[in-house]
Amino acid sequence: MTNETPIQTISRSELRQLVRSQLQLLLERNNLEGVKSLLVPVQPVDIAEAIGELPEAMQLMTFRLLSKAEAIEVYEYLDSTVQQALIEDFKRQEVIDIVDKMSPDDRARLFDELPAKVVRQLLAELSPNERKATALLLGYEEDTAGRIMTPEYISLKEILTVSQTLERIRSLANASEVVYYLYVTDESRHLTGIVSLRDLVISAPEKTLSDIMTRDVVCVHTETDQEEVARMIQRYDLLALPVVDREQRLVGVVTVDDVIDILEKEATEDIYALGGLQSDGDNYFQTSLWTVARQRVVWLFVLLITNTVTGTIIKSQNNLLREVVSLAAFIPLLTGTGGNVGAQSSTVVIRGLNTEEINALGPGQVIFREALAGIMLGLILGSVATVWAYWLLEGNIAVALAVGISLIAISLLASVAGSGLPFLFRSLGLDPALMSAPFITTAVDVLGVLIYFKIARLILGL
Amino acid sequence: MTNETPIQTISRSELRQLVRSQLQLLLERNNLEGVKSLLVPVQPVDIAEAIGELPEAMQLMTFRLLSKAEAIEVYEYLDSTVQQALIEDFKRQEVIDIVDKMSPDDRARLFDELPAKVVRQLLAELSPNERKATALLLGYEEDTAGRIMTPEYISLKEILTVSQTLERIRSLANASEVVYYLYVTDESRHLTGIVSLRDLVISAPEKTLSDIMTRDVVCVHTETDQEEVARMIQRYDLLALPVVDREQRLVGVVTVDDVIDILEKEATEDIYALGGLQSDGDNYFQTSLWTVARQRVVWLFVLLITNTVTGTIIKSQNNLLREVVSLAAFIPLLTGTGGNVGAQSSTVVIRGLNTEEINALGPGQVIFREALAGIMLGLILGSVATVWAYWLLEGNIAVALAVGISLIAISLLASVAGSGLPFLFRSLGLDPALMSAPFITTAVDVLGVLIYFKIARLILGL
Repeated sequence: MTNETPIQTISRSELRQLVRSQLQLLLERNNLEGVKSLLVPVQPVDIAEAIGELPEAMQLMTFRLLSKAEAIEVYEYLDSTVQQALIEDFKRQEVIDIVDKMSPDDRARLFDELPAKVVRQLLAELSPNERKATALLLGYEEDTAGRIMTPEYISLKEILTVSQTLERIRSLANASEVVYYLYVTDESRHLTGIVSLRDLVISAPEKTLSDIMTRDVVCVHTETDQEEVARMIQRYDLLALPVVDREQRLVGVVTVDDVIDILEKEATEDIYALGGLQSDGDNYFQTSLWTVARQRVVWLFVLLITNTVTGTIIKSQNNLLREVVSLAAFIPLLTGTGGNVGAQSSTVVIRGLNTEEINALGPGQVIFREALAGIMLGLILGSVATVWAYWLLEGNIAVALAVGISLIAISLLASVAGSGLPFLFRSLGLDPALMSAPFITTAVDVLGVLIYFKIARLILGL
Repeated sequence: MTNETPIQTISRSELRQLVRSQLQLLLERNNLEGVKSLLVPVQPVDIAEAIGELPEAMQLMTFRLLSKAEAIEVYEYLDSTVQQALIEDFKRQEVIDIVDKMSPDDRARLFDELPAKVVRQLLAELSPNERKATALLLGYEEDTAGRIMTPEYISLKEILTVSQTLERIRSLANASEVVYYLYVTDESRHLTGIVSLRDLVISAPEKTLSDIMTRDVVCVHTETDQEEVARMIQRYDLLALPVVDREQRLVGVVTVDDVIDILEKEATEDIYALGGLQSDGDNYFQTSLWTVARQRVVWLFVLLITNTVTGTIIKSQNNLLREVVSLAAFIPLLTGTGGNVGAQSSTVVIRGLNTEEINALGPGQVIFREALAGIMLGLILGSVATVWAYWLLEGNIAVALAVGISLIAISLLASVAGSGLPFLFRSLGLDPALMSAPFITTAVDVLGVLIYFKIARLILGL
């Protein structure tokens, strides 16, 4: 290979590693020119990450070395804690310069995190257009299309020709508004069609927008939940989705890059819920230990209380246990396996509900399927458990049978509970993910020991 | 509102519901004109979904009612089982017409699922260009950039002016190649820069591509894992990412819409792994019950075996249990809580590793943090458990203390194991998600009962 090959002689991730390891070193030696040249080939998001990892004193220093245009881009990618720290350290005019140039949706996100007093001061100093745009977004509920949209888009009248449109776009002062769709509206700002930049570029110059626009437009309302917005962009393979108000007037656009982050955040929330954790959307690894403990202790407490019920049941069977002490050895096996079977069922159902894959089947069909799977798994695992118990107890067939039969019953119970409870929770308007593995596990424990003791008493005739 | 308001008089989801409920009815009455007009305002992906829910005999019938252009779009969105069923029912020429017009990446995905014999026949009948494109993609490993890219893109020389480029694009026969970036290559097909359609449209017509292109291009290799491709598109907010071969020559493009599906699939895999399930990427609700049982039984077996260890330990303590039978009542509480604490730790660590949020902290710091959280949680929960045990046993302080102290020790152990094992697994080159809640739960069970009996013997002096 000749050295003319222009790009990717080192990979992106190598570059990121290099920046991470070198940046602090250069700063410590006060080699500011070195920092500047180190950062030249680095993407804004990578610079933001590297700044976030620096000690606070060095963050501002690095940030000041960036060109103004770059500073704005980098700032948008910083974690909100770093954004706030910088705002406090900046001089007044620096803050205004940067915040005024941010895109309105990023700015609204930043303002969400800042103290109300700081937001009021900043809003007052923004240029009128930006102030209006930001106030508009902040007026919508959190997690709705209105809050995450950008109010910057190009809307045109349908009588324009393709070449007129191209000229119009070229003459626009603020090129940041040009994305990949143009919106066609009537005189009352109602959305009547969409033209993609691609359609515009491949169409004959004399055609009008009315000739080439798509009239069957997928759009959402300002109050639409952001997860639904994300699902629609995913479903219809869109790059952006127009947002209309109650009067069907176009007010903004949600773009696909925001959507990826939303879907990622929702997946994290689901995963956390499945692990028995609350998630407030913050990066967990930046929250304090107190917050961590607080987020976890509530669920653990609920589960602890459920477990005391299991304990009370076992305690109430002390007579039985005193007589056949070896029964105790199988409690963890039975409750553990039941919990695992239930966790599997609840996981597929919760994920299916959240990705809408489950819609084709009704709750009845799903639970029935899971029940069948539970019986099959119970039969397989129960047989193995019976053989093992028989061996461990050196030939006590009665207890071994009690273990095996209980395992089948518990598997069935666990798969029905694991698949049914998420549906129940959803129909009550609650998040199905609350019926997570830890909860199912604990709930199955209680019923599992009841079943086990019942079956054991029957078989042992006690 | 006047009835001029052209769109969204009914919402997308209402329309989908309507199609679902009406389609089969119209087909049963053989009202084919009704079907046609029902489907006019419906997006291809929604038609595909509705067809997928029909009885098999009606699927082909509906599909034949679509216009040719629409049929191709709809076909790409169908589930692979439906795609296969249709291929078998089609007449020869119908198949070729549709498969030849699919985009190469979708076609490669379809061919992955079809029997090798059918693929050979279809390949032989494709037009030469499409055959070449498909064979190229199928030559790359599954789940790599090479397999998911489309080889259709526009590459241009940097000496072209903006107006020449616009003319060139307009004259292209196959407009499907025009997406939102144009790629600039040198005479040996090395990628030297990127021009977005947006940059092209807003630039002065006399400028050359060399003047306006971005030279610092983010790109990936054909062998790059698809998850990394997705993460890069997400990280750098791209609409498409160029793919180069070993000689740094441009060979294809991965687009953002594919990436959303990949991230979604990866999230499902993670969630399944956390629930103790294997995932093969198929829609779970379409797989057979046998597959379901097979996917689950392996993990359950592993966990069952671990649980027999717990059982064996308890069995070996029969003497102790016979003497203090009330000890048995607390086993589920201790192992259950330990499992839940461990599940929480492993969930945050596994998710953090997969989203790369954890990178800023090393394993040592993370495990130390989790250990502290484990001790805090253990102290809170242990105090409560001691009081409860004291009350349940009507004043047996020794056993109550044994329960409380064990719970602190088990919480610490669980949080260290839950946070440490995913790191260990990653460093061994295994998927950290294998250290999921069910596994941690079961592993903590074994150590938990050991700790409990040890502490109980010490306190009770037995």
